[in-house]
Amino acid sequence: MARNLIGIDLGGTTTKMAFLSVSGEVLTKWNIPTDISDEGSHIVPNIIESINQHITNSEFSKDDFIGIGMGTPGSVDIENGTVIGAFNLNWKKRQQVRDQIQAGIGLQFILDNDANVASLGEYWKGAGEKDADVVFVTLGTGVGGGVIAGGHLLHGVNGGAGELGHVTVQPNGYLCTCGKRGCLEQYASATGVVHVAADMAKDFMGTSRLKEMEDNQESVTSKMIFYLADNGDILANQVVDRVTFYLGLALANVANILNPANIIIGGGVSNAGNTLLQPTTRYFQENAFPAVRDSTKLRLAQLGNDAGVIGAASLALRFQKSN
Amino acid sequence: MARNLIGIDLGGTTTKMAFLSVSGEVLTKWNIPTDISDEGSHIVPNIIESINQHITNSEFSKDDFIGIGMGTPGSVDIENGTVIGAFNLNWKKRQQVRDQIQAGIGLQFILDNDANVASLGEYWKGAGEKDADVVFVTLGTGVGGGVIAGGHLLHGVNGGAGELGHVTVQPNGYLCTCGKRGCLEQYASATGVVHVAADMAKDFMGTSRLKEMEDNQESVTSKMIFYLADNGDILANQVVDRVTFYLGLALANVANILNPANIIIGGGVSNAGNTLLQPTTRYFQENAFPAVRDSTKLRLAQLGNDAGVIGAASLALRFQKSN
Repeated sequence: MARNLIGIDLGGTTTKMAFLSVSGEVLTKWNIPTDISDEGSHIVPNIIESINQHITNSEFSKDDFIGIGMGTPGSVDIENGTVIGAFNLNWKKRQQVRDQIQAGIGLQFILDNDANVASLGEYWKGAGEKDADVVFVTLGTGVGGGVIAGGHLLHGVNGGAGELGHVTVQPNGYLCTCGKRGCLEQYASATGVVHVAADMAKDFMGTSRLKEMEDNQESVTSKMIFYLADNGDILANQVVDRVTFYLGLALANVANILNPANIIIGGGVSNAGNTLLQPTTRYFQENAFPAVRDSTKLRLAQLGNDAGVIGAASLALRFQKSN
Repeated sequence: MARNLIGIDLGGTTTKMAFLSVSGEVLTKWNIPTDISDEGSHIVPNIIESINQHITNSEFSKDDFIGIGMGTPGSVDIENGTVIGAFNLNWKKRQQVRDQIQAGIGLQFILDNDANVASLGEYWKGAGEKDADVVFVTLGTGVGGGVIAGGHLLHGVNGGAGELGHVTVQPNGYLCTCGKRGCLEQYASATGVVHVAADMAKDFMGTSRLKEMEDNQESVTSKMIFYLADNGDILANQVVDRVTFYLGLALANVANILNPANIIIGGGVSNAGNTLLQPTTRYFQENAFPAVRDSTKLRLAQLGNDAGVIGAASLALRFQKSN
């Protein structure tokens, strides 16, 4: 009986893949570079080749696998197994991902967007602890998210559910790439934090290493800002205060609407750990109403880079009974 | 075979009851006054007596009913069928509602809170059109709501899901009865609209009937403010603009998180119709990101006062197979 799963986490630079047991244990994992040349036309064939090769070189045969799940950037049509508009993959035209992979590997295949899949990973094996109601927010180059309610990943009527990066936290605020203003992504992503710092530095009068760096036009990263804040830099602390105010407000409103057991914060910015989590929790509590404040917890993600492959693999669990 | 349902919509002044067909058609409906004297101890016995009497006087026998559903104010424990803290019913202590009603009528019974039940009503027979993803917001004395995602009513880990009245729309804004500041309820409920008007009148310089009324300390209602706005009163229009800005912002964020097919606006304030809906939709669109703006629609509720009994009855559908 098939007892294993394959998870794929497709990114603009690297494609992560893994074989997992049906209970979510990673048995083996590997990466290949994502070749986005020629309109991304090598991406799917490279995945097929790599997985077939790894099956051949493993102790497993194809029959040992229940199916394959994948997380991908771009706009996903789950029903038809296609992806469109994944600009960091050079996928401008609609890609028949499912049909190609099922034909090339001979296993059932299902996909979803990358943030949703990471949510499933944390839900299944990470900080979500399988609570039926979990929200995941990932603070990376952008801000993404996923909502699991009553044990089910929500997609909404047009696939827009869980897009926490576009919650409006500052009406008429920074212009977002989505076309509207004041999106959380513009304040709490890695680039957002840097933007907030550059703006606040202009008005800052005082002694601050961050202010010096901004004035000298040195390259400033989100990681550096949190590091400086941790080490007492006044401006950096003001920036972290501003960023976590917006993040805490957005997550409080998510909780006021959904009252999940946990809201899990992942992505590169979350590596700041308690320097991010503590002030965010304070603003969260200030803006969540009592029944929610007492029951919804903010937590840091636990799976790091593995959340994608693990969550992707969990998608393939639905093929379990048909195998 | 049992083909009918009983719905109860328990309110602080009136208790509405109805017999419905299994497809949600109201067969007969009636009201009794809610007697909140003696710590609300007459409420449940009065309901039992009234329903038993109506069954006796009807063409139906008890066996024709699948079960009874009820919507109630207060904090509901669905699993145990109890209610606590319903202050407008004088129910300060925990009430064993289910046990009393099942014993007194001899039919299976289930309850949920009043806003959730109204959401189910609109979802089942009203503006929700049975889309799997529907959000309901009710603008009455307070602001309540319900979230249906993937066809299921969400409760969250502590029953706080759908409490849209406590979404923070103005950080450090008006103090709410819940203890935090800036809740939607303080701006978009009937009392919230009146509060906003009183505040804005203070700073208003110009000719306005609403300003006159405020200056003369005449009694002003939300209904009057929308009426005056509709008839060109400048201050009233500014008030409606402020109120609908907050409402549109809150509903846009609900949609950015859930992307439901419809967000349905009900309650007394929604009787303002397009005077409320149009500006709310404009602010909604300004704060919803494109995939959501193009797919989530704001609509007015359709069932009016019947939403409660219809939604309550729909809860009892779950007893259908066990009968």
